[in-house]
Amino acid sequence: MAKKSKTVKESQIEMIELVLPNDTNIFGNLLGGRLMHWIDISAALAASKHCNNVPVTAEVDNLVFHEPVHLGNIVRFKTSVNRAFRTSMEVGVRVEVEDIKSGKIKHSNSAYLTFVSIERKTFKPIPVPKLIPETKEEKRRYEQADKRREQRLKRRHGII
Amino acid sequence: MAKKSKTVKESQIEMIELVLPNDTNIFGNLLGGRLMHWIDISAALAASKHCNNVPVTAEVDNLVFHEPVHLGNIVRFKTSVNRAFRTSMEVGVRVEVEDIKSGKIKHSNSAYLTFVSIERKTFKPIPVPKLIPETKEEKRRYEQADKRREQRLKRRHGII
Amino acid sequence: MAKKSKTVKESQIEMIELVLPNDTNIFGNLLGGRLMHWIDISAALAASKHCNNVPVTAEVDNLVFHEPVHLGNIVRFKTSVNRAFRTSMEVGVRVEVEDIKSGKIKHSNSAYLTFVSIERKTFKPIPVPKLIPETKEEKRRYEQADKRREQRLKRRHGII
Amino acid sequence: MAKKSKTVKESQIEMIELVLPNDTNIFGNLLGGRLMHWIDISAALAASKHCNNVPVTAEVDNLVFHEPVHLGNIVRFKTSVNRAFRTSMEVGVRVEVEDIKSGKIKHSNSAYLTFVSIERKTFKPIPVPKLIPETKEEKRRYEQADKRREQRLKRRHGII
Amino acid sequence: MAKKSKTVKESQIEMIELVLPNDTNIFGNLLGGRLMHWIDISAALAASKHCNNVPVTAEVDNLVFHEPVHLGNIVRFKTSVNRAFRTSMEVGVRVEVEDIKSGKIKHSNSAYLTFVSIERKTFKPIPVPKLIPETKEEKRRYEQADKRREQRLKRRHGII
Amino acid sequence: MAKKSKTVKESQIEMIELVLPNDTNIFGNLLGGRLMHWIDISAALAASKHCNNVPVTAEVDNLVFHEPVHLGNIVRFKTSVNRAFRTSMEVGVRVEVEDIKSGKIKHSNSAYLTFVSIERKTFKPIPVPKLIPETKEEKRRYEQADKRREQRLKRRHGII
Repeated sequence: MAKKSKTVKESQIEMIELVLPNDTNIFGNLLGGRLMHWIDISAALAASKHCNNVPVTAEVDNLVFHEPVHLGNIVRFKTSVNRAFRTSMEVGVRVEVEDIKSGKIKHSNSAYLTFVSIERKTFKPIPVPKLIPETKEEKRRYEQADKRREQRLKRRHGII
Repeated sequence: MAKKSKTVKESQIEMIELVLPNDTNIFGNLLGGRLMHWIDISAALAASKHCNNVPVTAEVDNLVFHEPVHLGNIVRFKTSVNRAFRTSMEVGVRVEVEDIKSGKIKHSNSAYLTFVSIERKTFKPIPVPKLIPETKEEKRRYEQADKRREQRLKRRHGII
Repeated sequence: MAKKSKTVKESQIEMIELVLPNDTNIFGNLLGGRLMHWIDISAALAASKHCNNVPVTAEVDNLVFHEPVHLGNIVRFKTSVNRAFRTSMEVGVRVEVEDIKSGKIKHSNSAYLTFVSIERKTFKPIPVPKLIPETKEEKRRYEQADKRREQRLKRRHGII
Repeated sequence: MAKKSKTVKESQIEMIELVLPNDTNIFGNLLGGRLMHWIDISAALAASKHCNNVPVTAEVDNLVFHEPVHLGNIVRFKTSVNRAFRTSMEVGVRVEVEDIKSGKIKHSNSAYLTFVSIERKTFKPIPVPKLIPETKEEKRRYEQADKRREQRLKRRHGII
Repeated sequence: MAKKSKTVKESQIEMIELVLPNDTNIFGNLLGGRLMHWIDISAALAASKHCNNVPVTAEVDNLVFHEPVHLGNIVRFKTSVNRAFRTSMEVGVRVEVEDIKSGKIKHSNSAYLTFVSIERKTFKPIPVPKLIPETKEEKRRYEQADKRREQRLKRRHGII
Repeated sequence: MAKKSKTVKESQIEMIELVLPNDTNIFGNLLGGRLMHWIDISAALAASKHCNNVPVTAEVDNLVFHEPVHLGNIVRFKTSVNRAFRTSMEVGVRVEVEDIKSGKIKHSNSAYLTFVSIERKTFKPIPVPKLIPETKEEKRRYEQADKRREQRLKRRHGII
């Protein structure tokens, strides 16, 4: 079970949600906070597949919302682990919104989240398998994940 | 937009859910009714992709629950339209349950649901695109869908 | 507490729900999955009264949805145990929908669910009290439950 | 449809709820606010049956909670209109809690709520049918409802 | 931690809620039961701050609802402990409703709830710190709380 | 009503939430996505007070989660508008977590969100009142908000 390394395919997931009245704000559009909740769940699922453990959300990079998502829209989350560090993983979520009538799919936004694999009782971080990028695209994301991590560390230390 | 026919690929979806405390019964297992709700949503999503319209649930074939699904399990719904009739569609949902720690995936159960595409104002049924099965597996499901439909009609007329 | 047999009256329940915005689909009608959830809860309540234990859903017979249920409608579930087998029970749910303004009540649909009484720790099936049908109607349901069970076993073995 | 008077039977309802994890506080007991929500819904259902209209909650008399209700308990609401005034109705809710294992039923508490029937667009109060108490018990409640109403008016005018 | 007495300031809280579609009845107004749930939570929060323990709701004094609260309104709960008795506390909740467009704030209603501090395992009442009223207003509420308590005891013993 | 400028005080809000079982992950800790949802709601409330309109979430700056928040904790959101631009506002949310037993309050994390005031029908951005910082602290936040905005614009144009 405790694999030493995994490919991107092995932890990729696709989540889908239908925007119901229960998910809407007073305009009848998707609540921003509900979208964030879904992004977090889909990222947690991919991270947990990678580490065969339940990880906790450590950081969410900035999120930009371009256009409202409407009641009745289908929201799709294409989620994969971009890079595994020692005890943490960067997960990328691509959010797409589909209009049922027209079938048109729009890229809504993208999110990067960092999860840490923790030991259930002590809540201490534990090592995660390495990620082996295979395709050109996977390698590009793997490289970028490292740069984003540097940015995060700089932000944490108040450099930017 | 109003395509005359579609392939199975064009309306296939995969939905994923994490069993949270909010979804559990007093044993800490997934509520049967919550699982049915998820099956219904995933089937509605595939049917709506096929007909580019919001369909309504017309019938759910018998469902068998084999083993309890636990808090923290990942539930995956592999859903596709098996056959389109004049105004209705049979949707098949394969439910798989994954244990995060072991990574083991079990086939939990399968469901067949019938949806009808309706005109939003009059609530009258409207024609749906034909489904073109391509692979051997898709053709097998296409044939079986017709037999299950016969069973449904017989049940409705009290023959079985 | 551990009665050897019970009458239908002793485990009959009536559940009632008001369709609120939270329960609706994008047409403002009751979500099919929410209705299934309510059917499951009402059947679980009747089964648990019969066996004085928390039972698990084992099977749901096919469900037919005739007409949409609207926001603001009252949904009534008349639920009773039709027959008790060794460790399982067939529960029948009659769903009625009432329009508040007109007071008109319509029979929406009927459902048959099978529950198994289980031992909390081992999750092993445990025997349930016998059901003693008294009225003509109760006896009719008692007989039919046996025929439906035969159908279920045939389906399970791939005969129909 | 617009009956001039109704018997108690015609607007009596019985609601039932199962305490699920979603309804509990951090002790695993039923949230006080959730119980109040259920009392309000059950009373609204009885009042709406009486007036064939959707009434609004105008007042809830004091509520006393005696003992905690536990996860897995069945909560039953026996609800009937006690008296109809010109545009308002007093509804009485008897809350009973049942332990599934022992089958023991305890009277948990009783609530009295006042609802006003309102015209949907103007939100102005509209007359409701008279209530005809028939049994001795119904007549007793009918008389008491009037006394409680006097208390409410006195409270409103600061006399008590 | 176990302070012998506290000022009103030390246990005062302010809670705020936005009325979303999920909270509404079929008119698009706030459900009475949801408002009661929020009142209960806000009062529990103030009481728990006073006693550094999780208290249980023992009684809710009568509640009067004057006007409907609308979808999109902001609801504010100004909540403080009015008086501490031996093991119980009276909490006062002032509910204000704000219309976002006009910025107008209306006093919607006021509620008085009684909470009892309990020992987690035995569920037995445990003593709470004394409350020291400081301002004139706090002293007025402190006196009134005692009178309301007398009323409650009288009601309990059937005197009024 | 349409004020030309407002002070920080006029749009400041404080929101409070109790972590209930419904809000937890499988460890019994607060779900990351639920916390994000609450942050979004509290920020939307402050922004709507500033502009007397319902604003939409445009951007959420990176969020860092330091420690798990537990079932039964009180979460407090101290929220104020830091700066108003032409049609947008930066809102700062300070999240504090309180342990009921010990009364200890910890700074959990801080968030910066950008909201845009939009015209309800056209969904076009509309001007918002100016923000007048008064205290030294308010002026510091006002200046920093401008720097964070520059960072956001740089990120959007791919400079960092």
